[in-house]
Amino acid sequence: MKFNNINVFVSSKAQLGKNVKIGDNTIIYDNVVIGDNTVISNNCVIGEPLNSYYSDMNHYENPQTIIGSNSLIRSHAIIYAGSTFGEGFSCGHRVTVRENTIFGKQCRLGTLCDIQGHAKFGDYCWLHSNVHIGQQSTIGNFVFIYPYVVFTNDPTPPSNNCIGPTVGDFSQIAVFSVLLPGVKVGKHCLVGAGSVVGKDVPDYQLVLGSPAKSVKHVQEIKSRETGASHYPWPYRFERGMPWENKSFDEWFNEQDKY
Amino acid sequence: MKFNNINVFVSSKAQLGKNVKIGDNTIIYDNVVIGDNTVISNNCVIGEPLNSYYSDMNHYENPQTIIGSNSLIRSHAIIYAGSTFGEGFSCGHRVTVRENTIFGKQCRLGTLCDIQGHAKFGDYCWLHSNVHIGQQSTIGNFVFIYPYVVFTNDPTPPSNNCIGPTVGDFSQIAVFSVLLPGVKVGKHCLVGAGSVVGKDVPDYQLVLGSPAKSVKHVQEIKSRETGASHYPWPYRFERGMPWENKSFDEWFNEQDKY
Amino acid sequence: MKFNNINVFVSSKAQLGKNVKIGDNTIIYDNVVIGDNTVISNNCVIGEPLNSYYSDMNHYENPQTIIGSNSLIRSHAIIYAGSTFGEGFSCGHRVTVRENTIFGKQCRLGTLCDIQGHAKFGDYCWLHSNVHIGQQSTIGNFVFIYPYVVFTNDPTPPSNNCIGPTVGDFSQIAVFSVLLPGVKVGKHCLVGAGSVVGKDVPDYQLVLGSPAKSVKHVQEIKSRETGASHYPWPYRFERGMPWENKSFDEWFNEQDKY
Repeated sequence: MKFNNINVFVSSKAQLGKNVKIGDNTIIYDNVVIGDNTVISNNCVIGEPLNSYYSDMNHYENPQTIIGSNSLIRSHAIIYAGSTFGEGFSCGHRVTVRENTIFGKQCRLGTLCDIQGHAKFGDYCWLHSNVHIGQQSTIGNFVFIYPYVVFTNDPTPPSNNCIGPTVGDFSQIAVFSVLLPGVKVGKHCLVGAGSVVGKDVPDYQLVLGSPAKSVKHVQEIKSRETGASHYPWPYRFERGMPWENKSFDEWFNEQDKY
Repeated sequence: MKFNNINVFVSSKAQLGKNVKIGDNTIIYDNVVIGDNTVISNNCVIGEPLNSYYSDMNHYENPQTIIGSNSLIRSHAIIYAGSTFGEGFSCGHRVTVRENTIFGKQCRLGTLCDIQGHAKFGDYCWLHSNVHIGQQSTIGNFVFIYPYVVFTNDPTPPSNNCIGPTVGDFSQIAVFSVLLPGVKVGKHCLVGAGSVVGKDVPDYQLVLGSPAKSVKHVQEIKSRETGASHYPWPYRFERGMPWENKSFDEWFNEQDKY
Repeated sequence: MKFNNINVFVSSKAQLGKNVKIGDNTIIYDNVVIGDNTVISNNCVIGEPLNSYYSDMNHYENPQTIIGSNSLIRSHAIIYAGSTFGEGFSCGHRVTVRENTIFGKQCRLGTLCDIQGHAKFGDYCWLHSNVHIGQQSTIGNFVFIYPYVVFTNDPTPPSNNCIGPTVGDFSQIAVFSVLLPGVKVGKHCLVGAGSVVGKDVPDYQLVLGSPAKSVKHVQEIKSRETGASHYPWPYRFERGMPWENKSFDEWFNEQDKY
């Protein structure tokens, strides 16, 4: 139904793996490498040239873009050249990812996400709709970011300084939060809705407010019904995670990487 | 000027009413039903297949999508299969509406709205630009939602729980507000700019702040110039409403539906 | 690499200057005038007809749209007819600019900006990603607006009143701020992240919070390292500005315009 080979443009310098599907009205530019079994849906632009293209179109060489195998890029995505996506990447509609962004494996971006480039994501990062990640951000593994979160990077705008935030493994950043330039959020933290985070957050803290303040250890966030701790969340959520059908501790102790 | 029949794809399984216009570069997939006199502008995708399409493309059957008569879908909309839009629907550019969303009649969505599906809207709901409605939200009739409002649904993210907010008839949700999971906002309420609403709001309340607190009865919001009450708003605003050129009370008392 | 003349539609009533490039899948409607050396990238719509087009397509006459010379419109922009862009305009992806918007020279819009029309911008205004400017807004020269800022215009929603905010020259509006209807922000101000500005702001003030309050004169915002004042910013930032390689005071004193 979707893949009718209408108005598709694929550069002769792109490399497509086995069983790759390309949607109608999609454009694949030079030096894009797409892994096996990946689906690029309709109306996408993959390998969008960098700004330097506009200053000298004749001598411009598009940097390599790598889309991992078993990925699903939904319609109307704009992916710049020079970024790398690990296997099993998927995204909603109208995402924009600029150059020099590195995603680990099994990452997900929601509709309308705006990744400004020069950023690094670990594995299994899930961003919901309309998240804005400024340049020079560093995001760990298993980090979940909810709608309308903004990572900023200029401490005294406007300036030529660019100091992105850092977020540790397993942390959660709730809707409408802002991470201010250079702030470091630890591991297993929870940043509450609408927070403006200007100071570093130690591991396992719930922070809240504008300016965000430490409220308690995340383990103290308990279910009203059962009294059980909601956090750290990996003990109660496993859908799509590598510890699915195992105990989190058992899985975690087997890992060298995380 | 706009409808040149260039690069239009309409599935043979779609049904178009009388005097329907389809814009250039627009895609209409299987089992879309479009009412009379409706305009689908350029670069739209109507009947976008659900996620299950990607797991088994050969056996996938697209659910029915119904676009009411006299509707106007502006350019670059993505409308998933399995949603229903009452007559006189209109939207701005780049809206995304996922599956199992039901709109009553005369609803409007602003540019960049992101309706995550599995949601229900009454009649005459007007959403301004860039509103994000999470799954399982229930919105009454004559509800106005302003830019960058987010309806959330996961009480302890990440989880598999999904409990959307509910908003009663005639309520207004101002810019940058968040409705937290499962919260119920009554009828004729006004949620002030930048509020984070975590507790249920009784009918006719103005609430404000983070966390949002009741400030006063909406009738106490008065014009500085005239001293007249600004709310409930239907007594002073009628453009596009069914009580246009009538008294609101007279119209309301004639209704069975609302 | 980008300009392959695939599925390009240019109205016979459009006027293109010398050395203009038009990207694939782009649509240029009637009465668009594009200056020399301007690049319109792929998948754009320039000269989108106004709402009145849909009520009487046969008699509709598209108002003139003027795109200045040496401009760069990145992909997926929607530019309505009846707006004017001074020379050296550039924008990110997926911007929407409605009718009767006037931009001075050297303005920039980030990805996903939503300019609702009937607005005026001076020269050298730089808007970052996802800024929403309501109708009847007036923005001076050298104004920088950061992501997810919203300018509102309806004091008692819903109503038929439309009173946009005003921002003076050299002011900065930080991420997630809201300017309420009719508010006037002076020159050289700094509105802090997440502020809701409901009262007029005198020149040179730092304001912060919801509701936003005056915190101090911007000159008192000093570097922790050097003790030097960060603001007014033109004394320490010149990239892309007309006082590049000059002293700001020297340049400023030579101007009649600003």
